[in-house]
Amino acid sequence: MNENYQKFLSYQERIAAYDMAFTLLNWDQTTAAPRGSSETTGHLLGVLSGEFYQIPTDPEYRKIVEELSHDETLAPDEKELIRKTARSQKQMAALPADVYAASIELGNRSTHAWEEAKKNNDFASFAPFLRDEIEMTKKIANYQNDTGMPIYDFILNQNEEGFTMEKLDAFFGMLRERIVPLLKSCEAKNGKIRTDFMKKKYPVDRQRTFNESLAKHIGFDLNRGLIAEYMHPFTTQLHLDDVRITTYYDENVFDSAIFSTIHEGGHAMFEQDRDRKYAFVPAAANSMGIHESQSRLNENMMGRSLSFWKPLYPKLQELFPENLSDVTLEEFWRAINRPQAGLIRCDADELTYCLHIMVRYEIEKKIFMEDYPVEKLPALWNQMYKDYLGIDVPDDAHGILQDVHWSDGLFGYFPSYALGNAIAAQLYHTMAKEIDIDGELEKGNAEAVHQWLCEKVHHKGGIMPVGEILQKVTGEDFNPQYYVDYMEKKFTALYEGLE
Amino acid sequence: MNENYQKFLSYQERIAAYDMAFTLLNWDQTTAAPRGSSETTGHLLGVLSGEFYQIPTDPEYRKIVEELSHDETLAPDEKELIRKTARSQKQMAALPADVYAASIELGNRSTHAWEEAKKNNDFASFAPFLRDEIEMTKKIANYQNDTGMPIYDFILNQNEEGFTMEKLDAFFGMLRERIVPLLKSCEAKNGKIRTDFMKKKYPVDRQRTFNESLAKHIGFDLNRGLIAEYMHPFTTQLHLDDVRITTYYDENVFDSAIFSTIHEGGHAMFEQDRDRKYAFVPAAANSMGIHESQSRLNENMMGRSLSFWKPLYPKLQELFPENLSDVTLEEFWRAINRPQAGLIRCDADELTYCLHIMVRYEIEKKIFMEDYPVEKLPALWNQMYKDYLGIDVPDDAHGILQDVHWSDGLFGYFPSYALGNAIAAQLYHTMAKEIDIDGELEKGNAEAVHQWLCEKVHHKGGIMPVGEILQKVTGEDFNPQYYVDYMEKKFTALYEGLE
Repeated sequence: MNENYQKFLSYQERIAAYDMAFTLLNWDQTTAAPRGSSETTGHLLGVLSGEFYQIPTDPEYRKIVEELSHDETLAPDEKELIRKTARSQKQMAALPADVYAASIELGNRSTHAWEEAKKNNDFASFAPFLRDEIEMTKKIANYQNDTGMPIYDFILNQNEEGFTMEKLDAFFGMLRERIVPLLKSCEAKNGKIRTDFMKKKYPVDRQRTFNESLAKHIGFDLNRGLIAEYMHPFTTQLHLDDVRITTYYDENVFDSAIFSTIHEGGHAMFEQDRDRKYAFVPAAANSMGIHESQSRLNENMMGRSLSFWKPLYPKLQELFPENLSDVTLEEFWRAINRPQAGLIRCDADELTYCLHIMVRYEIEKKIFMEDYPVEKLPALWNQMYKDYLGIDVPDDAHGILQDVHWSDGLFGYFPSYALGNAIAAQLYHTMAKEIDIDGELEKGNAEAVHQWLCEKVHHKGGIMPVGEILQKVTGEDFNPQYYVDYMEKKFTALYEGLE
Repeated sequence: MNENYQKFLSYQERIAAYDMAFTLLNWDQTTAAPRGSSETTGHLLGVLSGEFYQIPTDPEYRKIVEELSHDETLAPDEKELIRKTARSQKQMAALPADVYAASIELGNRSTHAWEEAKKNNDFASFAPFLRDEIEMTKKIANYQNDTGMPIYDFILNQNEEGFTMEKLDAFFGMLRERIVPLLKSCEAKNGKIRTDFMKKKYPVDRQRTFNESLAKHIGFDLNRGLIAEYMHPFTTQLHLDDVRITTYYDENVFDSAIFSTIHEGGHAMFEQDRDRKYAFVPAAANSMGIHESQSRLNENMMGRSLSFWKPLYPKLQELFPENLSDVTLEEFWRAINRPQAGLIRCDADELTYCLHIMVRYEIEKKIFMEDYPVEKLPALWNQMYKDYLGIDVPDDAHGILQDVHWSDGLFGYFPSYALGNAIAAQLYHTMAKEIDIDGELEKGNAEAVHQWLCEKVHHKGGIMPVGEILQKVTGEDFNPQYYVDYMEKKFTALYEGLE
């Protein structure tokens, strides 16, 4: 084997070894460690980060990657991995160390200021920090952007390669045109959907039993993964043989744990199913949009479908007879899909989720392309929530201050959440041509969906660019048409037969 | 501050940062990680160990320690820390790398062979490995022993500085003379101790409630530590602000979790209470005997005393009225102290524990000082169990094959378990002159005992040699007389008033 490439892999392996330790230390601080441990653990984590820092910045490593960038003997996925590594090394090298340090330091201060501002519903106190974060983002882009792209295109491209304003404008334009009216027509008919049983108490121990079997049902390998309990659901991994998700059980909101388990399970399976040839390259290091497509496809397209619940719902009824014995499968299905515009992105349902993202995309575009004044952003935010979601924002804590991202300089990141949905629909459309999805799900064979994703997406999906995966699997470039069609079809069917 | 010493501390800190990661990875593999993760985690752990290895073996580090060895400006505990570091560096350097590697490799093979031999009750299959381990231990001692000591003294001194055959012969001689007959006289009267309630069922959830409050009662800081459940009780630490113990709940053996919690809590408090000046030097890196004294003092001297249970027993009765409402405090106290010779060291009670150790000490002495033939060891073992514990060993699996230690080359290690008991008794004797132990415990103030230990032992006990601690705290050298006196007094009192 190529000696240089072998050396490259050994660097990747060393990086993966430290990442494993950092991931576990963070996981443990979140889920298990005693409260009083954080300061000393944080200090020693800093020491260990200092040890780690020498690896990615090793001049020998850069030299190897530089040489491999011109090595025509590499396989396509090897080339792709080298290209991405070279790109990030080049960008890191283009950024003066003091600017990098200042950006980290600003992120810490701004996040703290944001926490306070959100608590006190005081946007004015956060505004100077937001201004600084915007300036810092521009400054960094100035050092790193050698593409000739407009700044917001560059920022978007950093987060999701190939997805610039042209594509996103078309995508969000389509949503504005067809999803906004669809939501209005749904909400007008919502009164016909039965929801009484959703508000009953579902004891946590029985929810736990159901969720464990649900995770197995969708294909999450619990021999190489686990489910822990934590107030915010998330997925993390020590490596492809140890992928962990969290879920939160609330006896008053029983569907929350169900769909967060399927969602995080979708992320987790992507990591578990990766080609062992790239065991030490997490899929999460590639496109976030493709990763999100796997959680959304599992959670929404498959996990909220009637056919998925046909074999599972009787088991749920058996576990909670006091709440569900007089509720039909169709009533259950309608209730778990009932759309309702709300204030908070994190709590949004399938239909409204992308509208929340659209607001953030349009605001970011105005910030970077029109130098929109920071102090006027809350009013802009509130107006868009009125226009797209039809609701009034009562205060900034439930409006523009709700997300942490901007306080940490994460601009251009939100669109990936929406792209994930559209990519999922495009993949699901192709899948439906190749396997009988509903037939398999009705038989209780969710594994058929999992296997298709495994072969078509998970295997190489952590390495190849989104555009290439879509081309190879669906035969065309990114096309949000499938997503909008899927939503219209689904949310029309949801109300059919209701008088 | 001394610049060289500052550099030394920064090496210690880096070592502590890796240790934290290794400890957590091991803890997680034991208590939480999915089964299928072990191979990949093991591989990446190997990679990370390779990264770590460069620190303790750094020539610059050796040079600093060498220079500090002659630095008269250091404080006494700083000198002691440097002395120990220099000693282990010197010993490591004296051992050829290939011999070291061969010893690790032999340990892995032998441990595997021991597991099989124990399972199949087949000492003969393990004998060649045991012979190799003995030869390897001699070989290593030949490289490292520059003291002129006889080999077994050198081995003992490696485990517990200052404790050679002369001291241990006197110690175990005293045990043989006074504990062996004491055990016989106790067993003759055991029929008078009520034990019916010990065999009842104690539901695990209520045991858990009691044990959490018990851990707090003895002074284990749960803000900087935690209790997890695992089949073998042990203590581990990420650092002094994150010390973890495990316990195992068996509804049929309710006192097992209680005393293992107090035992491990004793270890844990020693780590939590260390001087922050040496935050990154675990107490466990110093004497194992002094560490064990803290677990034994808490578990036995304090934790099995009548005064300790006076305020706690009513709470236990309240939790388990169906089992304990007709059992008096004295009946409970007698039952948890009732001695009974058994086959297995790990299950041994307070009175018999050291006799198990005595067997191992005498056998090791014969191995290294008399070249006693390996094939004759089982017969020797069985004869000693008959002589000291009065019981017949039915097979080697329950005899000489019960412990893992020798298969991993751990000779000279067992005596520390016994020394821990004797050191504990010596400390407890002094403590009783300085505070009213029984009075405080009866008031429910176990914190008085904890505070005394904290100040006299825990603060510097992880740095200073055992002999020095004993001199400073008790005014004399190691003296096992206190231990034997304590046992005689306690096990005489236990049967008083029983007709």
